[in-house]
Amino acid sequence: MAGESEFIDWLRGQQSPAPPPGFLLVPPGDDLAVLKWPAGELLLVGADQVLDGVHFDSTVHTPRQIGRKAMNRNLSDCAAMACTPAAAVATVAAPRGVGVDYLKELYLGLREAADAFGCVVVGGDTGSWDGKLALSVTILGRSAGVEPVRRSGAKPGDVVCVTGPLGGSLLGRHMDFRPRVNEAVSLAALAPPTAMIDLSDGLSRDLRHVCRESNVGAVVLAAAVPVHEDAVRVRRDGRTPLDHALHDGEDYELLFTVAPSAVDDLPGFAHVIGAIGPEPGVWLQHPDGRREALEPKGWEHGL
Amino acid sequence: MAGESEFIDWLRGQQSPAPPPGFLLVPPGDDLAVLKWPAGELLLVGADQVLDGVHFDSTVHTPRQIGRKAMNRNLSDCAAMACTPAAAVATVAAPRGVGVDYLKELYLGLREAADAFGCVVVGGDTGSWDGKLALSVTILGRSAGVEPVRRSGAKPGDVVCVTGPLGGSLLGRHMDFRPRVNEAVSLAALAPPTAMIDLSDGLSRDLRHVCRESNVGAVVLAAAVPVHEDAVRVRRDGRTPLDHALHDGEDYELLFTVAPSAVDDLPGFAHVIGAIGPEPGVWLQHPDGRREALEPKGWEHGL
Repeated sequence: MAGESEFIDWLRGQQSPAPPPGFLLVPPGDDLAVLKWPAGELLLVGADQVLDGVHFDSTVHTPRQIGRKAMNRNLSDCAAMACTPAAAVATVAAPRGVGVDYLKELYLGLREAADAFGCVVVGGDTGSWDGKLALSVTILGRSAGVEPVRRSGAKPGDVVCVTGPLGGSLLGRHMDFRPRVNEAVSLAALAPPTAMIDLSDGLSRDLRHVCRESNVGAVVLAAAVPVHEDAVRVRRDGRTPLDHALHDGEDYELLFTVAPSAVDDLPGFAHVIGAIGPEPGVWLQHPDGRREALEPKGWEHGL
Repeated sequence: MAGESEFIDWLRGQQSPAPPPGFLLVPPGDDLAVLKWPAGELLLVGADQVLDGVHFDSTVHTPRQIGRKAMNRNLSDCAAMACTPAAAVATVAAPRGVGVDYLKELYLGLREAADAFGCVVVGGDTGSWDGKLALSVTILGRSAGVEPVRRSGAKPGDVVCVTGPLGGSLLGRHMDFRPRVNEAVSLAALAPPTAMIDLSDGLSRDLRHVCRESNVGAVVLAAAVPVHEDAVRVRRDGRTPLDHALHDGEDYELLFTVAPSAVDDLPGFAHVIGAIGPEPGVWLQHPDGRREALEPKGWEHGL
């Protein structure tokens, strides 16, 4: 059977297209890659993983899709801070016997997602084990002249927005979304968000994160939440499309707040869904005037 | 059972001691951490993982040991380039039901290893799954005024050295080694290595990597290889201690080459074990004059 060194030789022949000149001083293949970080640019860093049976199903999804999702989740974190993805490293824990072709497809999935935003894959590690497939990606982002947008800057009076329709992503979108990197950079230029997060845990839970970090509360207007057509199609469980839009995870749209003065400058992809208030708590306002607590219904991992 | 949010709250209360002032602008807890990379310093980056049943045995080793090993392997990569560890992120794929206390111990193991070298743990991700324990760590190193030492700089005539005795690390040292970060920085100042690698795959295999990257060959003097007492103790399989020293993996000592003119400046921990020659191939020279090819006996992962 083909071995590790064949795969590594192949990997070393793969190069991300055209990293910025002078950026990647020592390419993958040594103990570490060497980058020349642009002077005066902040470095944003985080890591995220996808696990078989949790974030994908290796009996259903292709390795290309799995690699793409692992990278796109990290690119979505860059979007959430309005930074520019610059470089990534990845580790793969592969079931023994999975074969070199499968690993190549995983890598090409990672690369395909990274290439779309000029992000260079600069290293990593592949190991095989008597276990299931796990992919971990670390992303390095550049501030690129934009102040990183935190979760903690929302202020009473700010308007709450999302970048697109929500809900039902488990029908397939969760494997094939496009991270909102360009939208975030464009927002930062046109209508700077005061706080931002990417919607991975569901609107009800992620809005709560922003409110908690910002020490504020929020009201969401039920009639204003953009509902994805998948949230209509998915309703086999009797939940309403709105319920899916409010609580489903893995939308990977951005949730952000802007000052009222910036509302007129919002780009077309921004949907206003509510407002920030001083009192803690997250509320859902119905068209008939009813207001109820918007509790997260997404489940929490038991550890 | 205690959940993810309890662990995350606990994590956010944990802070690496005293990161350099102005370095960590946004601490863990947001989508990404924000670092101010020192101007003029190169950024070295790589990732490495430890997997249950491959690099540790969760039925034998404590989570503290496992966390420490995951971080130390990455710190050892920093040593191999003679850079200074600055920051790390980690992902943990934890078997469902493992419990919050186990995760805390894993984290404290990561931190214990990182703290020893002033490396700040700045983020990561924890997920649970119906799978075995996998830890992935990404390390960011600073050049700190030292030209990164690559694998490719060995020249004919250079002397080959290691930082300590080899072999038998599977008796326990592989879980509790101290990465040679300080030794590497001190070497770079006293007797700059022309090439360097950390010994994770075994001397016979890692020396081959250096020779291949440098387009040279090497002769190792059998009588000069420092043999660890573990390599004597381990010989239940009938292999000689020298055989263990030459082929066992996970020593995590440094293997490096220096110009002949630098030999007099080598610090006390350096053991000269051979020399680089122009002809490709790696040879073992016995005291009786016999010379044989030093083939890697370590196994290669089947993929």
